[in-house]
Amino acid sequence: MTVHTGRHFLQIPGPTNVPDRVLRAMDMPTLDHRGPEFAELGFAVLAAMQRVFRTRQPVIIYPSSGTGAWEAAMVNTLSPGDKVLMCETGQFAVLWRGIAEKFKLDVDFIPGDWRHGADLAEVERRLVADKQHKIKAVCVVHNETSTGCVTPPLEARKLLDRVKHPALLMVDTISGLGSLVYEHDAWGIDVSVAGSQKGLMLPPGLGFNAVSEKALAVARANQGMRSYWDWQEVIAFNKAGTFPYTPACNLLMGLREAVKMLEEEGLENVFARHKRHSAATRAAIKAWGLETQCVDPNAHSPALTGTRLPDGHDADNFRKIVLEKFDMSLGTGLNKVKGKVFRIGHIGHFNDLMLMGTLAGVEMGLDLAKVPHRGGGVLAAMEVLKGHDAAQAPEAAVA
Amino acid sequence: MTVHTGRHFLQIPGPTNVPDRVLRAMDMPTLDHRGPEFAELGFAVLAAMQRVFRTRQPVIIYPSSGTGAWEAAMVNTLSPGDKVLMCETGQFAVLWRGIAEKFKLDVDFIPGDWRHGADLAEVERRLVADKQHKIKAVCVVHNETSTGCVTPPLEARKLLDRVKHPALLMVDTISGLGSLVYEHDAWGIDVSVAGSQKGLMLPPGLGFNAVSEKALAVARANQGMRSYWDWQEVIAFNKAGTFPYTPACNLLMGLREAVKMLEEEGLENVFARHKRHSAATRAAIKAWGLETQCVDPNAHSPALTGTRLPDGHDADNFRKIVLEKFDMSLGTGLNKVKGKVFRIGHIGHFNDLMLMGTLAGVEMGLDLAKVPHRGGGVLAAMEVLKGHDAAQAPEAAVA
Amino acid sequence: MTVHTGRHFLQIPGPTNVPDRVLRAMDMPTLDHRGPEFAELGFAVLAAMQRVFRTRQPVIIYPSSGTGAWEAAMVNTLSPGDKVLMCETGQFAVLWRGIAEKFKLDVDFIPGDWRHGADLAEVERRLVADKQHKIKAVCVVHNETSTGCVTPPLEARKLLDRVKHPALLMVDTISGLGSLVYEHDAWGIDVSVAGSQKGLMLPPGLGFNAVSEKALAVARANQGMRSYWDWQEVIAFNKAGTFPYTPACNLLMGLREAVKMLEEEGLENVFARHKRHSAATRAAIKAWGLETQCVDPNAHSPALTGTRLPDGHDADNFRKIVLEKFDMSLGTGLNKVKGKVFRIGHIGHFNDLMLMGTLAGVEMGLDLAKVPHRGGGVLAAMEVLKGHDAAQAPEAAVA
Amino acid sequence: MTVHTGRHFLQIPGPTNVPDRVLRAMDMPTLDHRGPEFAELGFAVLAAMQRVFRTRQPVIIYPSSGTGAWEAAMVNTLSPGDKVLMCETGQFAVLWRGIAEKFKLDVDFIPGDWRHGADLAEVERRLVADKQHKIKAVCVVHNETSTGCVTPPLEARKLLDRVKHPALLMVDTISGLGSLVYEHDAWGIDVSVAGSQKGLMLPPGLGFNAVSEKALAVARANQGMRSYWDWQEVIAFNKAGTFPYTPACNLLMGLREAVKMLEEEGLENVFARHKRHSAATRAAIKAWGLETQCVDPNAHSPALTGTRLPDGHDADNFRKIVLEKFDMSLGTGLNKVKGKVFRIGHIGHFNDLMLMGTLAGVEMGLDLAKVPHRGGGVLAAMEVLKGHDAAQAPEAAVA
Repeated sequence: MTVHTGRHFLQIPGPTNVPDRVLRAMDMPTLDHRGPEFAELGFAVLAAMQRVFRTRQPVIIYPSSGTGAWEAAMVNTLSPGDKVLMCETGQFAVLWRGIAEKFKLDVDFIPGDWRHGADLAEVERRLVADKQHKIKAVCVVHNETSTGCVTPPLEARKLLDRVKHPALLMVDTISGLGSLVYEHDAWGIDVSVAGSQKGLMLPPGLGFNAVSEKALAVARANQGMRSYWDWQEVIAFNKAGTFPYTPACNLLMGLREAVKMLEEEGLENVFARHKRHSAATRAAIKAWGLETQCVDPNAHSPALTGTRLPDGHDADNFRKIVLEKFDMSLGTGLNKVKGKVFRIGHIGHFNDLMLMGTLAGVEMGLDLAKVPHRGGGVLAAMEVLKGHDAAQAPEAAVA
Repeated sequence: MTVHTGRHFLQIPGPTNVPDRVLRAMDMPTLDHRGPEFAELGFAVLAAMQRVFRTRQPVIIYPSSGTGAWEAAMVNTLSPGDKVLMCETGQFAVLWRGIAEKFKLDVDFIPGDWRHGADLAEVERRLVADKQHKIKAVCVVHNETSTGCVTPPLEARKLLDRVKHPALLMVDTISGLGSLVYEHDAWGIDVSVAGSQKGLMLPPGLGFNAVSEKALAVARANQGMRSYWDWQEVIAFNKAGTFPYTPACNLLMGLREAVKMLEEEGLENVFARHKRHSAATRAAIKAWGLETQCVDPNAHSPALTGTRLPDGHDADNFRKIVLEKFDMSLGTGLNKVKGKVFRIGHIGHFNDLMLMGTLAGVEMGLDLAKVPHRGGGVLAAMEVLKGHDAAQAPEAAVA
Repeated sequence: MTVHTGRHFLQIPGPTNVPDRVLRAMDMPTLDHRGPEFAELGFAVLAAMQRVFRTRQPVIIYPSSGTGAWEAAMVNTLSPGDKVLMCETGQFAVLWRGIAEKFKLDVDFIPGDWRHGADLAEVERRLVADKQHKIKAVCVVHNETSTGCVTPPLEARKLLDRVKHPALLMVDTISGLGSLVYEHDAWGIDVSVAGSQKGLMLPPGLGFNAVSEKALAVARANQGMRSYWDWQEVIAFNKAGTFPYTPACNLLMGLREAVKMLEEEGLENVFARHKRHSAATRAAIKAWGLETQCVDPNAHSPALTGTRLPDGHDADNFRKIVLEKFDMSLGTGLNKVKGKVFRIGHIGHFNDLMLMGTLAGVEMGLDLAKVPHRGGGVLAAMEVLKGHDAAQAPEAAVA
Repeated sequence: MTVHTGRHFLQIPGPTNVPDRVLRAMDMPTLDHRGPEFAELGFAVLAAMQRVFRTRQPVIIYPSSGTGAWEAAMVNTLSPGDKVLMCETGQFAVLWRGIAEKFKLDVDFIPGDWRHGADLAEVERRLVADKQHKIKAVCVVHNETSTGCVTPPLEARKLLDRVKHPALLMVDTISGLGSLVYEHDAWGIDVSVAGSQKGLMLPPGLGFNAVSEKALAVARANQGMRSYWDWQEVIAFNKAGTFPYTPACNLLMGLREAVKMLEEEGLENVFARHKRHSAATRAAIKAWGLETQCVDPNAHSPALTGTRLPDGHDADNFRKIVLEKFDMSLGTGLNKVKGKVFRIGHIGHFNDLMLMGTLAGVEMGLDLAKVPHRGGGVLAAMEVLKGHDAAQAPEAAVA
């Protein structure tokens, strides 16, 4: 086996590269989760996450994966038999439906081709048709990690308002938060779902819910069974900076540092950086003569780019070659795009030269894997980066 | 405010002191949870945890607190209305009942005085009386972290066998595993529940279930709602060294190192060390003229010692003085022993001189807090430690 | 072999326990020693060391051990044949003489019994006798690490002034700086010599010189051969925040953090803490019926305590037992006190409970090594610590 | 000021990128430099460095920069007035001469144009002319870090043998060791000089000498003044795994891990990797239409590539732009090539994609700095890397 040297290129769309500062902040003695030093940490990260979610409402932090935070969103607000409207944007939407079904919700799943954001027009039609307001929640995936397509949550809010439907708006922004503009309060989101290992630049192990007043009221009235995920108990303990059960102290220590880094860079700059890298990546893909998985020019993800290989070429074989020859992990195609798509993560703790190393690895890998393509992708990406201006990208990236 | 120097003494019974080797093992770049390097890690920690639990059955690892692993034990095996037998050994037994009730189980809660292990004689009586086998599970806390009393799981198994009752035996060994002898298979445990931040010497953030074949069969037949905690999906993914949702990679990297350290020391030696430190601590308490919370000489915990202050003296005030003057965190008294009990953790990554620093801090703190006591505790503990032989302790510690 | 668990007790008088914050600060990517980020670091540590030495004069930082900084002090200011006055306070004074002789200096070595500070009365006599001012430098060891005896540099300055002798005053404060009051400028020191691995709480690898204007003038005039140690070249580069050869970047990163910690605690508090720990240690030794190596009540070191074993008992055998049984490193007796003395370091990143663990280890070790002694040392130390007042110590410690 | 995100590209030819494993190995509690655990470390690193230098002779490890190791080489073997033969290969040869002159050696400095290795033909002529064997040492720089030109030490050995001249052969392989083939014994080197912060992948702070039996004999006979650098005392202590003064413990802990990594990769593979990256870099430079500083096709350094900018373009301005825009540090031109040359380090812990990020940064920087150049450098480098074969490089790299 080849022994690799130098840094591994972790270019999957999460877990993402964790900054040294964050790893070092976690690499400190753990602490008494009931003592005054912890309370300081608790208050700090709760406030920090409110700033990141852009909310004055409570943020709940779970020792869990992002999947757990999805489950939390549902079990707090919904009961068996409740109808929910979901959109098939990709694998993570499919997984969300799976959870909903396990909790015996009645899922109305709007089909999609995995190459666009959510079909909001169809959402609107179904809401309009739902005169009796049986639909209790509309669930959308902000940044579909399996495809690289963005659905604008604000548009979903607008249509709910337009049709005056009282359903909760629940948004999975697991790979969106910290990479794409996100406004929990201003966009009228009821439940936001996030995880630590994407734009927040942490290892996996924390899940988040941001919750509106309306969602909280629904939760208070909800008799459904829950304990670990119960918002109310967490919120009650959080008032003292503590948690109802032992929190993942060291990940929280890392979270404090990670948000500090995001704020030192400035969230606006963070978002602009992701858009620029996304534009450069698409420029490369276009130059290679390949297709992005996302076909809606307004829906390209700033965080990752799903890339299709020509028919007859296995994306996983390509990924294997890139891993072995160049020590770079690229994201696999999931479920119905397995073998057809690979994903380039350009999310989190990342910069221009890391992107260029990444794209050079892809370009060389295409050659070694004998995938038909034109050269020039790397050059095209450099043209975008030199401009230091996303406007020069072939297509505008989504906010 | 005093700025403390030197190392904080984290002498709560969990989170415990994390070894440098474990913190450093976690302080490495995170990795592709779907790649070959992760699979190696996945297989390694699953096998390691089987060795620690002493089982050939599956171990499930959750990104969660230990509380989550309790919830997992219940939602996989029990359904609303199911009767379970529990024993009030202390606060963690009370919490377990709370979870059970939130999942609408019918809890038969055998009262206890928080100063003994579980009342197994009463358990036996109730099982005998349960001719129709309505009781679906007997739940005991192996090492009650709120009191320092041990309940021997093997005795519970023996009585279940004796009365030929088919109930599942579920054991919370959150603060037992890695500190006290534990034999998941040999003791016939159906579900073992553990967490990372105690004897496993990790930061909090991982929960564990070890499950018998019988428990798995029950789970397969159980129609109850669950997703995140569902054993079967995890076990299915584990066959490839992966997990159904993003695992807490860096905590797993730490887990691999922590088990390596336990095995380098030898689990037998680890257990003997905890017993010796427990004996030395009790010798000190006896010399001070104070009482241990545990009053059963056969039930003293090797992992922590609950200590009572005389009436009229507030244990939390004492703890505050010790924290401020000596930078040592001691465990608070929980729930009904609040203010009456403080807890000394001597669990995990610990040694004789750390214990002596701890006990000296307690002895000086008693003086500064004007708690009536005799001197000589520290000397008595040294006598035990010099012997390097737990047999010299005033009372034998429990296996 | 026993596998030790818990933290090693590193109670030698240097290298001392390095704080996690300092280790983590060093555990960051190294940097371009000619770039702007390094210059910031360079300026920061140079200014920080001026504050620690209490000087407005240049501080020179070498990638070297403290021994190198001694050599630097000599080769910059002295030439073969120059007469220097030194005092045999212990092994480090002997080593200093050794270096001087290797550089062909003419050493006038005032004998000592290794149980007192320097014989300043004799220094004064010899200076008075030196009518022709052949003596070019008086060299004293501030805190003699091999014995635990302090020589007050200010007294040396006063006597030089009193007898109006122009010799340079050179002070080895390797184990003094950061633990004992030190005033390079106010005390009129010409060359101060220090190292990183003592009160500065860093790993070994940095040596320091602080230099007076007078010393600099002497150096400028000195034709002696030198390159690596040459002050002038370093000082010239330091004006730009850089160094003439590659500096030990990561140790400098640690130094910045270590001084930050010292200043957060407050240097006055740091000094008081060391005195209090020294007093508690002596109280223990007195209670055990043992002797401190230092017999001058005004000369006890706040940083370490040399302790004598009764005749017929081998201090290194005792140390071996303590290391094996209790995982504690104590300082060995050096040179003429080999086997007779062991040294307890209570210097650097340290606190009350660490000291109590240390002293308990010594007390238990005395017992296991069958060294005749009374009990009660640990108790006596606790009495001092509870007072939180060095005034209660049996003998006043030296500033 | 721009806040940079992602990893800094440290592409100077030293200090080089330190692997996480090495930083973590250093990030552990420091230890008693006189205890048994240290002795194990001491023996381990001494043996490891013998394997890296390819010698059975002693290796001396100093807490110092590489410059200190140069000084050590001279003061151990030479005395004031001794004649030495040196070759002006670049700035580090100039510095070496500077040290020699400070120690009053009589330097015969063979001029060079900084674009070739040492003029060995001229060395041979001068040795032949030195009938009386006044020349005591021939000093060559193996890999001239200021230019990227290699001088083959074996050729120097051959010519010394050919002309039967007894001068010592002293080789500065500071930026060669661990990156270029090096054979201290087989090539008949008398003194090898190295440092930690280049191919050894450590932070700066350690200097090394490997010494032949002949050099040791010369040193034993040498009456010159020295103490810190004295080989004999170090070698004597090393027999017990210790050092005469406090060693830089944590850097040694890192060294043990770094050599482990080099040996896991295999030194042969390490050398081949450096050659391949050098070839790819030269391919890029050629494509850009720029010149390498080294003009001898047989002398190109595998470790770094000096690159010239066209007249009228300031290399430091270019470097500044690259640092600000792309967070990459490139090496500055030193001394007589200041402003004319920048240096690309491809040494140490490095891989193909890091190189591609580096070269993309250079190519974009050339554009932003308006340096006239052709495109295609990045593409040309990819062609070399895809081949995974240095043979495809435009010119063969030196062993």
